[in-house]
Amino acid sequence: MKSLEWKLDTYELVLIDQRILPGQIEFITCRTTAEVVAAIRDMVIRGAPAIGIAAAYGMAIAAAAGVSFPSQTFLSTLANASADLLASRPTAVNLPWALNRIQTVIDTFAGNNEALRDRIIVEADAITRENTEMNLAISRFGAALIRDGDTIIHHCNTGPLATIAQGTALGVIIMAHQDGKHIHVLVDETRPRLQGARLTAWELSQYGIPYDIISDNAAGYFLHSGQVQKVFYGADRVTANGDVANKVGSYMLALAAHANDIPVYSVFPTTTVDLALPSGDLIPIEERDMDEVLGISYHGQRVTPEGATARNPAFDVTPHHLLTGLITEMGIVYPRFRANLPRMMREKL
Amino acid sequence: MKSLEWKLDTYELVLIDQRILPGQIEFITCRTTAEVVAAIRDMVIRGAPAIGIAAAYGMAIAAAAGVSFPSQTFLSTLANASADLLASRPTAVNLPWALNRIQTVIDTFAGNNEALRDRIIVEADAITRENTEMNLAISRFGAALIRDGDTIIHHCNTGPLATIAQGTALGVIIMAHQDGKHIHVLVDETRPRLQGARLTAWELSQYGIPYDIISDNAAGYFLHSGQVQKVFYGADRVTANGDVANKVGSYMLALAAHANDIPVYSVFPTTTVDLALPSGDLIPIEERDMDEVLGISYHGQRVTPEGATARNPAFDVTPHHLLTGLITEMGIVYPRFRANLPRMMREKL
Repeated sequence: MKSLEWKLDTYELVLIDQRILPGQIEFITCRTTAEVVAAIRDMVIRGAPAIGIAAAYGMAIAAAAGVSFPSQTFLSTLANASADLLASRPTAVNLPWALNRIQTVIDTFAGNNEALRDRIIVEADAITRENTEMNLAISRFGAALIRDGDTIIHHCNTGPLATIAQGTALGVIIMAHQDGKHIHVLVDETRPRLQGARLTAWELSQYGIPYDIISDNAAGYFLHSGQVQKVFYGADRVTANGDVANKVGSYMLALAAHANDIPVYSVFPTTTVDLALPSGDLIPIEERDMDEVLGISYHGQRVTPEGATARNPAFDVTPHHLLTGLITEMGIVYPRFRANLPRMMREKL
Repeated sequence: MKSLEWKLDTYELVLIDQRILPGQIEFITCRTTAEVVAAIRDMVIRGAPAIGIAAAYGMAIAAAAGVSFPSQTFLSTLANASADLLASRPTAVNLPWALNRIQTVIDTFAGNNEALRDRIIVEADAITRENTEMNLAISRFGAALIRDGDTIIHHCNTGPLATIAQGTALGVIIMAHQDGKHIHVLVDETRPRLQGARLTAWELSQYGIPYDIISDNAAGYFLHSGQVQKVFYGADRVTANGDVANKVGSYMLALAAHANDIPVYSVFPTTTVDLALPSGDLIPIEERDMDEVLGISYHGQRVTPEGATARNPAFDVTPHHLLTGLITEMGIVYPRFRANLPRMMREKL
């Protein structure tokens, strides 16, 4: 169960097609940067960490394709590829972060095209390795919070498919399970694209972790009736004050947890943090195609009337005051986030 | 667009099959009480007010069928029919309320079977007429709150299909529209059974009221970003302190509205109020078949993995402190509900 695999021999990026899981398991091979851009845009691959890594290898593909060009043409090819990859999805900060890492390599490199290509691949591999280690560290910090017998609500998909290792919020759950704790997961189905019902449920079943799928709007009932001990979800972008942009529905889930004194944690690598943004109100929210909402069917029957329209914001922002803590690879940050989050990141870097 | 029609000539109840709307418009004719019980249980007809009226006519059907029995057999047939109808759905208080009305007729009647049958039909007709008048009064009180240009979030289905006239929460919206106010409705799709995406969207399109469907978990984004002026939903059961049991998701919606200082109203006839219950924590919550959650498909593709399980509470309780007001046919009740709601009902009755 890996979200992506880099083929060094052929400079190809192989992605599992997450749009058709779990019914079908198919792989898509990207041989051009345009194919990587399309795969990110169309959500063949998704999840902020996985998108960042895919973009880094998208740059490796661009470098491999342009290696015989004159040096200036080669560099402008790379610049175009970077711009295209950057525009493939908004919101996620890992995407510009990974592309910046590659850009720094390009800007500071002195050598021929082949050597630069190889150096970009080394950098993409390094990002992959660092992400794997971050996932593990995040999972360790988070798993310590989980008690034997806990029932946990999880939103969207933050597991192996969304990342490069065992995941962020789901990584925490997987590690607690591997530590021998008996846990039960209530899986938010996560409309409109149903990443929870489709992907998280499938991942949990692979690990043998007991779960039930719930409709997103049922979380309030379970939180209010004392059936849930913790809430975990990921983050697509975190601002300096601890506000968290994440998959739409995270905000209402955090409100319901907070109102019932149930701890709610956002789980992410610090690469997701944008210290330059003071608060979440400044995060642009991607609004996706209305067909993601309208395309729902129920027992095979189309549901929405002819000519219906929809609004489809893909993310929302959880204000920091609703969050119990932020779980990162550097440790768990507690309020006051505005002071503690930048301090932790400065101290450890 | 009527949820039900009583055929006096043949003692039949004709229901529009709400399970397959809006794709197909089909009618189901109930000729026995058992067929009415099945129609309520299987949600051919739904919505607390409509269920109550259907149950009343279910008693009329039982009376018509048993009219040639000896008097004692006739009465025990009616008692059995009433018990079966009562058990067809939990939560909704209109169901026992309507059956109690019929029972009072039975208990106080002195006459032969035919006369009792006719008296039951008269009572069912009276319930229908009163409901129609209540709908109109509710809509008038509520429509006065809506301003030209308002964007309104509506949850589940509370329109003509759920009631006997133009509805409760949706009746308010329809009347504001008929008053010439320009309004826009964000329609919660209302998982798992998608009453919003299926039925409310269809009803709004019939009235020419502009709307967009949203996934339930996107309401928080719209409320937080200042795009919504009011929230309206119905009620399946209201307790003496103003707690409201309604379709699952209502609670999270009210939390999000309250957190962003957006007025949120529950709209219902006072027949929905159960003054004997002091608070919403005492309301039993129906948990329906998990297949309602698991049966979702997306662009024709089954979504949930083989062997997946689900939890499916059909309702949740909104604590009264989250609500701005309760809109009834007797007027609008504002906090403190525990004092104001019983007082209004006692004064007017």
